[in-house]
Amino acid sequence: MTIAVVGSLGLDTIETPAGRVEEVLGGSAAYFALAARHFLPVSVVAVVGTDFPAEARRALEHPDLDLSGLEVREGKTFRWEGVYSKDMNTRETRRTELNVFEHFRPKLHDGLRSSTNVFLANIDPVLQREVLDQLSNPRLVLCDTMNYWIHGKREELLEIFKRVRILLINEEEARELTGESLTHRAARAILSLGPETVVIKQGEHGAFLQGRDLYFTCPAVPIESVIDPTGAGDTFAGGFFGALARMGRLTDKTLRAAVVYGCVMASFTVEDFGVAGLFRVKRQEILRRADSVIKMTRFSLDDTARLLR
Amino acid sequence: MTIAVVGSLGLDTIETPAGRVEEVLGGSAAYFALAARHFLPVSVVAVVGTDFPAEARRALEHPDLDLSGLEVREGKTFRWEGVYSKDMNTRETRRTELNVFEHFRPKLHDGLRSSTNVFLANIDPVLQREVLDQLSNPRLVLCDTMNYWIHGKREELLEIFKRVRILLINEEEARELTGESLTHRAARAILSLGPETVVIKQGEHGAFLQGRDLYFTCPAVPIESVIDPTGAGDTFAGGFFGALARMGRLTDKTLRAAVVYGCVMASFTVEDFGVAGLFRVKRQEILRRADSVIKMTRFSLDDTARLLR
Repeated sequence: MTIAVVGSLGLDTIETPAGRVEEVLGGSAAYFALAARHFLPVSVVAVVGTDFPAEARRALEHPDLDLSGLEVREGKTFRWEGVYSKDMNTRETRRTELNVFEHFRPKLHDGLRSSTNVFLANIDPVLQREVLDQLSNPRLVLCDTMNYWIHGKREELLEIFKRVRILLINEEEARELTGESLTHRAARAILSLGPETVVIKQGEHGAFLQGRDLYFTCPAVPIESVIDPTGAGDTFAGGFFGALARMGRLTDKTLRAAVVYGCVMASFTVEDFGVAGLFRVKRQEILRRADSVIKMTRFSLDDTARLLR
Repeated sequence: MTIAVVGSLGLDTIETPAGRVEEVLGGSAAYFALAARHFLPVSVVAVVGTDFPAEARRALEHPDLDLSGLEVREGKTFRWEGVYSKDMNTRETRRTELNVFEHFRPKLHDGLRSSTNVFLANIDPVLQREVLDQLSNPRLVLCDTMNYWIHGKREELLEIFKRVRILLINEEEARELTGESLTHRAARAILSLGPETVVIKQGEHGAFLQGRDLYFTCPAVPIESVIDPTGAGDTFAGGFFGALARMGRLTDKTLRAAVVYGCVMASFTVEDFGVAGLFRVKRQEILRRADSVIKMTRFSLDDTARLLR
């Protein structure tokens, strides 16, 4: 079993209070794939330009990553530059150069068309639809999106929502999408748009999952210092989908555990610039951090009924 | 056993997207006492003016509330008026009239001086110190504070921190106090200021507790609609301290359960204007909401080690 991800690959220039890196490997597909590969092999569907550095390419050349769907197009690779505020809670985009990504029309080869597990990362919902239309047996399709599409291509996005089982979205975007100011009301409103489950990403506050009969919250895994929050959401998606697809079934139990693995994987990304944190991840450390979430959240109310007057 | 709370009582005028109420009972001591009384009797040390309405007084006249420390002074009662933003995440203070509260100098009578459980609600740290100096056997002292004192009376506040076991503080205040932009780093920095434990209140994201060897997170209890967030933090403190003092010992287990009861009690307050939500609280509903937190947070990682490649 594998997961196919359709998303962006690019070269990011990132400035945070911890420092600055220039033209490092980035893009939603990179973060997703490098997280999900710890659970299942991942096929990457994306486009880069002929200037895509050999070093960035090598970073993706891993036995568990299938790059047969990676198109190299004449021209320059997608570039993004962003600067984070002092508390890293907001960021300003200084520059977006779509380059070859502007004309990206994902074409899945026969092997990829039969993918059953597909992640539609944050790209134009028109492209997300084109991908869906090429799939012969889409059993578990998850998607992400962002403000830009919520405002610019709302109708197209709402069509996608009817065709995906789980939507991953961040807190502010969920509120903007639904017009609900309480996040958990926004989550429930999203369920009426199509997805049977929605996962709300809350940054340093963790994430929660809302299903028809399931509400599960998970805190972020605290780390010593946040170096760069870029890609944390896509990494969460990789950990979540990777764990879920590996478990094979969507149940109350597997969905809960998947959220925990999403939070765990995201904690590795923010520890370093770009995808660097994901390269140091050891199996034992994933398990250790997942266990730490148990310790952070468990409690007992045994006999506390007698506390009350 | 009882808890003594020293704080404000006032008449609040509150405007939220859900409506407006004028001159309703408010103040940190009111919210704290009306929450904590579900666990233990509470003695209220505060001041009101001769204009304090009979209705507000009656709201506090409950078998579990001791009002012997409530001073009635010639003059007007403290008044506050605030307006919340559409998403209720920010509020603007339109009016603060300290009135008799301006010259409040808490004097504890003999019965109160022997209190062992004391909550120093958010008041001038100079007054918090005067209270501490009057206590003959302060075994479990908790305190709260706010930005105003962090900036205006920092030295006095730092002296208080050396004399309290647990500090309750909200997220932004913890960051401002310590200069740390990551909340959990701020929490750890606070431990070096004196308190052995700090509880960080995070509004709709719940709360977490940081001790020397304990980190526990608890989500907010989701409710259908937030009517008025005023007093949620003081209510949390009442539920937390009430449950903790009732359990009698500070252990890993009791601290965790106390955070859960803090979140549960806060969920009642935000459901209605002012303290109104706290009046409808039934014992069974407290237990039901506490149980719901278990369902929202529990998960199992059994056999998930095999998920990882």
